Formats: sequence, structure tokens, C-alpha cells
Amino acid sequence: MDSKYDLVVIGGGPGGYPGAIRASQLGLRVALVEADRLGGECTNYGCIPTKALLKPANTIWSIRSMKFVKGELDLDFNEYISWVSSIVERISGGVEMLLKGYGVDLYRGEAKLLDRNTLYVENIGEIKAEKILIATGTNPSELPLLKVDGEVIHNNRTILRIRRKPSSILIVGGGYIGVEFASLYAKIGVEVHLAEIMPNLLPGMDQDLSRAAERMLKNLGVKIRTNTTVKSIEKRQNEAHVELSSGEKLSVEKILVAVGRKPRSENLGLREVGVELDEKGYIRVDGSMRTSVENIYASGDITGPPLLAHRAFMQSLVAAENAAGKKVLYDPRAVPSVIFTEPEMAFVGMSEEEARKNGYKPKSLKMPLGGVARAVIEGGEEGFAKIIYDEDTKQLLGFVAMAPHASEIVSEATLAIEMGASIEDLSLTIHPHPTISEIFGEISELALGRPKHFLIRKRQK
Amino acid sequence: MDSKYDLVVIGGGPGGYPGAIRASQLGLRVALVEADRLGGECTNYGCIPTKALLKPANTIWSIRSMKFVKGELDLDFNEYISWVSSIVERISGGVEMLLKGYGVDLYRGEAKLLDRNTLYVENIGEIKAEKILIATGTNPSELPLLKVDGEVIHNNRTILRIRRKPSSILIVGGGYIGVEFASLYAKIGVEVHLAEIMPNLLPGMDQDLSRAAERMLKNLGVKIRTNTTVKSIEKRQNEAHVELSSGEKLSVEKILVAVGRKPRSENLGLREVGVELDEKGYIRVDGSMRTSVENIYASGDITGPPLLAHRAFMQSLVAAENAAGKKVLYDPRAVPSVIFTEPEMAFVGMSEEEARKNGYKPKSLKMPLGGVARAVIEGGEEGFAKIIYDEDTKQLLGFVAMAPHASEIVSEATLAIEMGASIEDLSLTIHPHPTISEIFGEISELALGRPKHFLIRKRQK
Repeated sequence: MDSKYDLVVIGGGPGGYPGAIRASQLGLRVALVEADRLGGECTNYGCIPTKALLKPANTIWSIRSMKFVKGELDLDFNEYISWVSSIVERISGGVEMLLKGYGVDLYRGEAKLLDRNTLYVENIGEIKAEKILIATGTNPSELPLLKVDGEVIHNNRTILRIRRKPSSILIVGGGYIGVEFASLYAKIGVEVHLAEIMPNLLPGMDQDLSRAAERMLKNLGVKIRTNTTVKSIEKRQNEAHVELSSGEKLSVEKILVAVGRKPRSENLGLREVGVELDEKGYIRVDGSMRTSVENIYASGDITGPPLLAHRAFMQSLVAAENAAGKKVLYDPRAVPSVIFTEPEMAFVGMSEEEARKNGYKPKSLKMPLGGVARAVIEGGEEGFAKIIYDEDTKQLLGFVAMAPHASEIVSEATLAIEMGASIEDLSLTIHPHPTISEIFGEISELALGRPKHFLIRKRQK
Repeated sequence: MDSKYDLVVIGGGPGGYPGAIRASQLGLRVALVEADRLGGECTNYGCIPTKALLKPANTIWSIRSMKFVKGELDLDFNEYISWVSSIVERISGGVEMLLKGYGVDLYRGEAKLLDRNTLYVENIGEIKAEKILIATGTNPSELPLLKVDGEVIHNNRTILRIRRKPSSILIVGGGYIGVEFASLYAKIGVEVHLAEIMPNLLPGMDQDLSRAAERMLKNLGVKIRTNTTVKSIEKRQNEAHVELSSGEKLSVEKILVAVGRKPRSENLGLREVGVELDEKGYIRVDGSMRTSVENIYASGDITGPPLLAHRAFMQSLVAAENAAGKKVLYDPRAVPSVIFTEPEMAFVGMSEEEARKNGYKPKSLKMPLGGVARAVIEGGEEGFAKIIYDEDTKQLLGFVAMAPHASEIVSEATLAIEMGASIEDLSLTIHPHPTISEIFGEISELALGRPKHFLIRKRQK
């Protein structure tokens, strides 16, 4: 083969396919190489199946909390998983339809760089490319003691294949994947144990979220052990006997290993052609998503954390536009994160500490949701919202929330940060009643000393 | 009595209590007079009870659509209504707690202006006030033929008192109240008929929403008659025999009259002290919420449509700040509206026609939700989003959506309009995946000719 493309994209996930589509829209001749399923980790093993799994689980749980609704519900686990798969297939199929519709040539197989303009694709042969975009993402990290067998020990990929509801599960890792799966399984009646090596769940995230996640999971009956690892494991047919670092012994039907991710930068010929990696194996890029090799770009999770599909989308578009000769920079200032529990958790922008480092004079304010009518109606009163803003300019710098619909309202905070909005702006924006988004008005008013639905002591005159 | 207040607020609803609180925060001596329950129409008979009623109905309905969830649910209607009442009482109680906490004196009774500085409150006596804020809101409009009896014929207030699920109901009026109640009753298994005098539902609103509402209600089994009124009615114990203008005859257990609102501006002594009303009886105000009488302000629904609690909140605050000597104007540019069906409907800003009248060069673009993953997961694919923007400047002017969580995401559009954001800004804002708010990015990219999740034909070179 001697095809010559303007751009070849390696990887058909959120870091890859949007760039292929954009490059084609900009008139480039584009190919995309994918060894697995189109849509990548997000569509096939991450965001999409987990959110599909969570929706019915949350709905069933919500019904249970309504004492005036009588009757018992039973989840047909096999049909449930089939439904989740059908959603995944539909969205993955949508990606294929888009790529074909935009005239992107698809190659199925593992790719390897032979030189700066040549790829070798297994079963296909050599492909010539003016420019290359690497978006190979990450794989689940492994633990030597807990080797994934797809039977008893699982990662986020293999766990989606089980067709019978387990009676019990040990989730190793209390990051957002562990927390989402713990809430999911607890809500559908699985006995859930969670072991986290660090002193708290959601390590590295806002501490109020971390504490809230722990409280939420405990209320769901999840047995949480922090500062805990697995010391030994003995597998017997369809069961694992586990000893924890505390000495405690557990028997569970399944184990889910969710201890982080590692970059897929091996065996791609990256080092050989001069693409620089960082110490963890992620590809180093500049603001235009260009690697240390002039005609090679990278985008998405392979460029390092935060590992988020929507960040990958944007980076992929930026890489494609630059590959097409535009001058565009990726702006990492306002990248929201969501944990899809119920209530949801979300955050965007800077923490107080980051703001201080960046020369701001940050102030943070937290507000409970008790005064937000929709939170009362939807049982989300244990939630909260928090803003980080500059004390002098009142500019909004960060936002954190645990609330119903937090995943949706965090976008308003994202736009506010993007636009340089102040909390004065937020307090003057009319939010519809009754919604959770009213918290933006309420908390901004509180920060300005004039809340309408929150009691602050009157100052003495 | 010879009390002398800086500000007396007449009405304890969304147009009244926020202003009383704000005025107190600003150091004024404030009283509030309320003849009924604190919280007004919204808390007691509108937004709050209807949203509380809808939440379980929508959840039960959502479960039914999940074929993999087995089992039958039964709603204990009496307990359900008790739960709704407890929510209402809690939120109404919160308003009382706030007013007391901020030192606002509460008077219970009907108020009447004796002169520009004097009120007479029944059972209390005269109250002197430097300034007065009128926030008396509206009452449900009546139909001579369908006089509300609280037994067979109801309005939005009396219908909340019924404690046994009716087998059938005729809703007269297809505005947002009629549409919300129709979806509610249909979802809990009531036979629902809806009669609207105009050719379509949601008259005066965006036509795509209007059509979508009709389709949605039809799918729920609601029998809709447009261009239709009630010609005659005969009540027999717990049943009404109705003849429609078409000649069709119906027997229903209940009738809900939802044909609009009328201002509560009678018997207040308004005309006598010189407060100008418009031809419909609403109070005329300027941008500072001042009436034609210098020391008398008005806010909320009594100032005319759109009748919305969140608009009333803001107007009330503006009135209070001006009463306290500040100079603040109410900005009506971006007031969102929501219809709490499921999917929800929401809109904010200008229609294409309004934009044209205001000197813009508007363009509108509608996008289905099929490419938005969360809409697929949550069964909201029949939904859509629409933007109205200026063709030259790309400034966002309006937003319309039928989508899951539309009530929450409309706040981002509201902030965008407030901040003068362009669709370029929206396309560069990173929305979390998978959420409905991604539609802002997608539709803006489509308007700019470069969508990532939507196929447009490639132009011939």
C-alpha cells in the first residue's frame, strides 16, 4: 500500500475521532486506525456503559425512597446488561457512521510508527501520512497480586461482560470509578466492599466531596476500608478469599480492580521516531497539541491527566485544526469533572490552593442545599455547593457541588469561568425556579452578604 | 396602632418576601402582610407542589419504560398527597423562619391602602409606612360555566386537596399548567382529556415546543382537543357530563380549569391613592419597579406577564434595593421559562421574530438530541435544542430545548445571554461528557459549520 494521507489518526476514541472529523471538515484527506472498537474507552468501557448502568439503578433506588409507592421491583440482570450493550453499540455505531460520512478511511488493526511519516498497520501494511495524531489513550492499571482473569477478578472492561448479578464484590480503589461502581452495585442489592490505599476516598479531589462520597456510600451499606490494600488472595471456584492489609478476611464473589490508568504509549515506535514521553509514559505536548516531533500531534488521555473524554474531544479538535494549518491553543483553565453518583458530584476550575498559587486572593464559600427547593423535592438536601472566587475582583475561579443534576449545572460554572464572570454576574442572572441551578444565585448572594434564602445573623448596628 | 415602618410589603410570595428580606439586610425596618400562607402561589399552589407531584410520577413512568425491570408499582395516592403537603409546609415554613430571622414583622390579614403611607390590615388596624411594596400576585382566571366548587370542578389550588386518585379528568386549558397536570395524571394512570381553545397547546410559546408537547401528551394517552371549549356541563354526584363545542360528549370525574391568571389588584385601594393599572388590571412599573406613586413599588406577577417566580424574586430584590435608596434596574432580557414535563421544556431570551424587531439579524438552528449520548441513555432522543443568534456577531440571543434536565441547562444559556456570549464562546466551552449540556457545544459547532457529532454533507470542492 502506498496511500498518502494529510492526517492519520491512531485511536478511535474521544481523543481521536473528533479530530479526524474536524480535519476532514477542513479539507484534509484523513485516515483513522483503531485496533478495538470505535468510540474508545469512554464509549465502550467507560462513560457510556457506566452511565447506562447507573440510570436504572438510581431510578430503582429513588423509587425505594418514596414510601408512598408500594410494590417490589426486580431487575433482570441479563436483560439489563443487554440493554446497556445496545446503548454502547448504538453510540459506537454512531461514531463509525460519522467517520464514514465525513470520508475518513478506517483501518482496523494495531498501528506502529516506522518513521515520522510512515505507519505500519497489522494486516493492512504501510500507510504514508503528512501528519499524525496519536490518541491511543490508556489501559487500566494492574496489581500484580490481582491479575484480571475476567472470571473472579475484573477491571472496568471485563466487569461489563458479567451476565449474572454477583452476590458480593470487593472494589479495590476508591477513585471515581470505584465510587461509581460501589454506588451502582449497592443500589441493585450487591454486598459491596471497597478498599482504598489512601486515607480517604476520591484522593486528590476536593475534601468536601471526598467526605460526602464516603457518607453517601456508607448510607448505601457499602463497607469502606481506607488505608487498606489486599495482602493475599486465594481463588476457589467462583469465589475469592481475600486477606486485607489490616488482617481482616473477606470472601467475595467478584473483585473489581480500579486503581488508575496507564498510558498506551508502548510498542508504537514513539521513542524511535523521537516523540518525547514524560516519566510516566504520557506523551509531552505543547499548547497546540504538538509533540516533540513537528508533524506528530497527540490528544486525549495519552497526553496525561486529567483523563476525561470531554477534554479529549477538545484537544482532538485543537490538534486537527493545527494539523490543518490553523493556529489554535488548547485552554485547560475550565475543564469540568463529574462523578455520576446520585446526587451527582462535579467540580471545575481552581481549588483555593491552586488559585493562591496562580496569584489570586481566593476565598471559598460552601452552602448546604437545604434552602434550594428542588433539592428538597428530589431528596438532595445532604448536598452542597462551593465557590472559589477572588476576594478583590469577585471573579469566579472554581466551583464544586454535590447535588442532583450537578453534572448539568457545572456547565454554567464552566462558562462563567471561561467568560471571566464575577459572582456579581451570577447573582444577577435569573435562574429558573425551582431548579438546582438557583444555587449559583443563592451562593453568590451569600458571598456578597445578601442571601435571599439563607439566614445570616444581622450585624449589630 | 401607630407603627411606622420604612417598608411594608403586601404579599408573602416570591414577589414579596425576598424584597422584605433584602430591605431588612439593608437596614430598613420592614413589615410584611400576608392574608394566606407564606410563600404565595408558587410555594403553596404552584411551582412547589406541582414539581413534588411530578417527581414520583416521572420516576414511576421511567421505571415502566425499562423493560428489564420487573414488578408492579402502586401509588398510595393519599400518602403521596401528604408527602407533597409536607414539602410545601417545609418550604413555606422556611420562608417564615427567614422573615422572622431577619426581623421582619409579620401581619396576617387582608391589606388595603388608606393613603400613600397608610395601610389598613384586617384584625390588626392601621400601619404607617414610608414606602410600600405591592406583591399581591394573581388568582386563577375563572370560566362562568365552570365555577370552581372544589368537588368536581377545580383550579390549581383546590385540585391539590383531593385525596383519592380520580379515574378521569378533563383539563380545560393547554397552557403550561394544563400540560404539566396532563402529563402528571396520565403517568399515574388517570384518563386525561385536555381541551384548548386555541389551535395548539402552549399558545404563544415556541412552535416546536408546542408541537413536541402535543406529541408527548398523545404518547402518554392524553386525549387532546384543540380549538375546543366546553359548551355545557351537568354535574351529577361526583361526575360531570360535559358537552364540548364540537358536540362531543364526555363524562369525567374531575375538571381542572387552567385558563390563565388575573391580577389581584382589586380592593387594595390602588386606584384611590393613584397607582396606575394597565387595561388588564396589572400594576404599571418602571425599570426600578416603582409605580406611578413615588413611594409605592410593585413586583412579581402583579406587574404582569411573564408570571414566573424567579422573575418575581429578582423584581422583589430590585424594588427593595431602590426602596432602600440604591439605584438598580430590573433587566428583563434573560428570563428563563420551564415546563416541567419529562423531558423538560425550557426557553430563554428572544425568538427570531423578537430578535428581528430588536434590530438583530437573527438566525435560528434546531438540532435533534440523537447525537447526545446522555439523551440516548435517558430516553430523551425525541428532544431537541434550538439557538437563535445574530448572523453577523454570532451573539447568542435565544435558546429553546426539550430535553432531560432542560430546566437546569437553560441556566447556562441564560448566563450566556446575560454575558453577551457568542456561539463561538459556547463552542469553546468544555462541557462534561456525557451530559445534556453538551448540546451547547454541538449546536454551536453546527452553526459554525463544524459539528463533531452530527453529519453534514461535505461540500463539493
